[in-house]
Amino acid sequence: MRFASLLLALALAAPAVAQQQTRIPDDALANAAQLREQALADDTGWKLIESLTTEIGPRLAGSEADARAVAWAEKKFAELGFDRVWTEPVTFPAWQRRSEHAQVLGANAQPLLVTALGGSAGGEVEAEIVRFADFAALEAAPEGSLAGKIAFLDYRMARTRDGSGYGDAGPIRGRGPSVASSKGAAGYLMRSIGTSPHRVANTGMTRFADGVEPIPAAALSLVDADQLGRLLEHGPVRVRLALDCGWDGEYTSQNVIGEITGRESPEQVVAIGGHLDSWDLGTGAVDDASGIGITMAAGHLIGRLPRKPKRSIRVIAFANEEQGLIGARQYAERHADEIAEHVIAAESDFGAGRIYGFNTSAPDHAKAATRQIAEALAPLGIEYMPGEGGPGPDFIPVSQAGGAWAWLAQDGTEYFDLHHNADDTLDKVDPEAVAQNVAAYAVFAYLAAEAEGDFGSAAGASQAPAE
Amino acid sequence: MRFASLLLALALAAPAVAQQQTRIPDDALANAAQLREQALADDTGWKLIESLTTEIGPRLAGSEADARAVAWAEKKFAELGFDRVWTEPVTFPAWQRRSEHAQVLGANAQPLLVTALGGSAGGEVEAEIVRFADFAALEAAPEGSLAGKIAFLDYRMARTRDGSGYGDAGPIRGRGPSVASSKGAAGYLMRSIGTSPHRVANTGMTRFADGVEPIPAAALSLVDADQLGRLLEHGPVRVRLALDCGWDGEYTSQNVIGEITGRESPEQVVAIGGHLDSWDLGTGAVDDASGIGITMAAGHLIGRLPRKPKRSIRVIAFANEEQGLIGARQYAERHADEIAEHVIAAESDFGAGRIYGFNTSAPDHAKAATRQIAEALAPLGIEYMPGEGGPGPDFIPVSQAGGAWAWLAQDGTEYFDLHHNADDTLDKVDPEAVAQNVAAYAVFAYLAAEAEGDFGSAAGASQAPAE
Repeated sequence: MRFASLLLALALAAPAVAQQQTRIPDDALANAAQLREQALADDTGWKLIESLTTEIGPRLAGSEADARAVAWAEKKFAELGFDRVWTEPVTFPAWQRRSEHAQVLGANAQPLLVTALGGSAGGEVEAEIVRFADFAALEAAPEGSLAGKIAFLDYRMARTRDGSGYGDAGPIRGRGPSVASSKGAAGYLMRSIGTSPHRVANTGMTRFADGVEPIPAAALSLVDADQLGRLLEHGPVRVRLALDCGWDGEYTSQNVIGEITGRESPEQVVAIGGHLDSWDLGTGAVDDASGIGITMAAGHLIGRLPRKPKRSIRVIAFANEEQGLIGARQYAERHADEIAEHVIAAESDFGAGRIYGFNTSAPDHAKAATRQIAEALAPLGIEYMPGEGGPGPDFIPVSQAGGAWAWLAQDGTEYFDLHHNADDTLDKVDPEAVAQNVAAYAVFAYLAAEAEGDFGSAAGASQAPAE
Repeated sequence: MRFASLLLALALAAPAVAQQQTRIPDDALANAAQLREQALADDTGWKLIESLTTEIGPRLAGSEADARAVAWAEKKFAELGFDRVWTEPVTFPAWQRRSEHAQVLGANAQPLLVTALGGSAGGEVEAEIVRFADFAALEAAPEGSLAGKIAFLDYRMARTRDGSGYGDAGPIRGRGPSVASSKGAAGYLMRSIGTSPHRVANTGMTRFADGVEPIPAAALSLVDADQLGRLLEHGPVRVRLALDCGWDGEYTSQNVIGEITGRESPEQVVAIGGHLDSWDLGTGAVDDASGIGITMAAGHLIGRLPRKPKRSIRVIAFANEEQGLIGARQYAERHADEIAEHVIAAESDFGAGRIYGFNTSAPDHAKAATRQIAEALAPLGIEYMPGEGGPGPDFIPVSQAGGAWAWLAQDGTEYFDLHHNADDTLDKVDPEAVAQNVAAYAVFAYLAAEAEGDFGSAAGASQAPAE
């Protein structure tokens, strides 16, 4: 996942007029309790994660595997009994990784493990390393001072449950290469934004500002960043960075959507989902096959209830989240006239850790309903956390357009050991934690679909937390 | 390290005549207690490991870094105050790794993380996978049955404290490719002999029997072996294996030797050491910079004592252990006439875990002295384990020629998470465990050098445990 924002203050624009309180009927709460127990005993979510990561494997947006993933999702939605399954095209420029090498030159010659950042230029650079402790230090470097050098950003991301360390480190990857290039740098290396002590490097997108020359930009494993730091204590270090990667044409993928059609108000949807694309280094098990498996399974279990929910449950497998919420943005544009019908939305895109917290963007008239859902989630070990959270990344565009969101907070303590690196594989996913997630999404989505009243979705004012 | 043998029954050939009991004088025991405490408070071992892994990095036998490692060891011995420092040439064929790729073809196309086995042929193969659960199953395959196939050995090594799981799995790497080729296989893949759940594959030597066609042979990470196993449940799997590697000429490296000269019997030596070469995937921190750092530091601390020990302490940094104990064999040949003067020998080549056990090959007349040493080691948490152990790999040739050995058993529970893979790096080494190891080697070597009487070394009958 990308984190555009997390844990930020709410910027709500609730209607000022007195309004009917949203509430959830008792029979729905009783059904939800059963649904919760069924979900905990069900392994559909796990099987979907296994199938996607095994049969498709890595699925970089715009790669050959992207199309296979789309076909996989369509087939699974159909097999799982969704009432409607369709796709919506998503077009974007395709970036390819072909090879990546780095090595220290000279008296301490040795290879360094790197991975190219998405959006990096290809090319080969041999240059001296200039180390910066953080992004502010890079920004403070005088213009031209990096001419002919490789900038090395050596910032350590903090391990946290809520992923806040990622947001702090974000600009180093997203903007660092562009800033370095603007000061003359010929190449860019960074300590991976990640927490793994193993020999894996973390990729992710970077963007060059208009008019700035794209340069080769790569991340070192934490181990290799430590090594480079030690070598720099001995004196100047020259490195050869050779990346074969780059942009190559335009590609059209698909958002894949499955819907359980509501019995009373089918045009109103509770939207859940994850993203179908992954980075190419692992098999995208926690990022984000887990979100796909969890939300598909939740929709499936709701669809198998004796009676369909009042509103529709829409499960969206978004295209190309990794390179800039591309599928999400195109979804929000395409559905701009239906924001009020997106009753509430929640994405699972923070791995497969257990959910520990819940909140929504609900205005005052729907806070009681939010609390009712929180109470139905409490037996899963989930705490109501008012004032916290935000939509998952792929529902940021919808929430910015006025859509209400829910937050099912996953424990991300170990997420950045795996995120965007080669260790993001099936074996790191705990089937019991997946079942807990499926139960939480099923209960939330079902109850939101049964609620009498809304959660504040209205076209216009953004519901997204401030950046 | 390679394990030619471990934990096997002793095959002793003790003299039948009555003999003076070997014993250790009280003043030596008192000095050893001080030495032990000094060593625990000293970080020389850790600093050596840091220096070798940082400044030289990976040091594949026969590579450019091999020569730098030799120069490093000579310089460090001199700086550490060893009385004599010299080198002895070691010649061998050089094997090179240039690139390695594997991928599943067809409907489930995806890359597989592999590393070429040392001694593998280069080449590119596209073929169907035939899975074998263990080495016996491969051996049982009919002649010619693997024609045009890639054999896949899918055996899981057990995690154990003493490394016994490695010995069980050994033939899969050492002989598997040759056996597969002899049955017609065009390529060989194996589940790594290792225990890491991370995305690292474990290399190590393989050998093709005379008259057998060398084929490309590589190890998969455990994660990738799991993935291949799951894909095989869906039906036949075709894989492309492309290795650019192979033998390239002859190379002369050096055993590097530092000696603390004994005050009474300098021609008699207590030999300790490790191996200077490493595989190329990590920086060889646990295999075997640790052994080098531990034994160099132990020799250094003995050399700093107010009075030199009675006998000499010889620290040997062996060349090219990894490709077949090459330096060790050439050392034993060169010193064949001095086996009786090798009073006792112990190699540190099982990582940097704490030492938990001690034993020697001592015959009856030196068992009491062995027990005295064990008692001096006991405050370090080390237990006397009569009947167990063997020489480290590089002292197998000496012990086979009649040299006595000591065993300082390290906890290897986590060793095979790192052994021969990219994760074998400095950050995995615990400085406090290193100091405990240094203390143990210093105490052992000092007391053996002060012993009145011998430990059974005599040219001729092998002291090595049975294979």
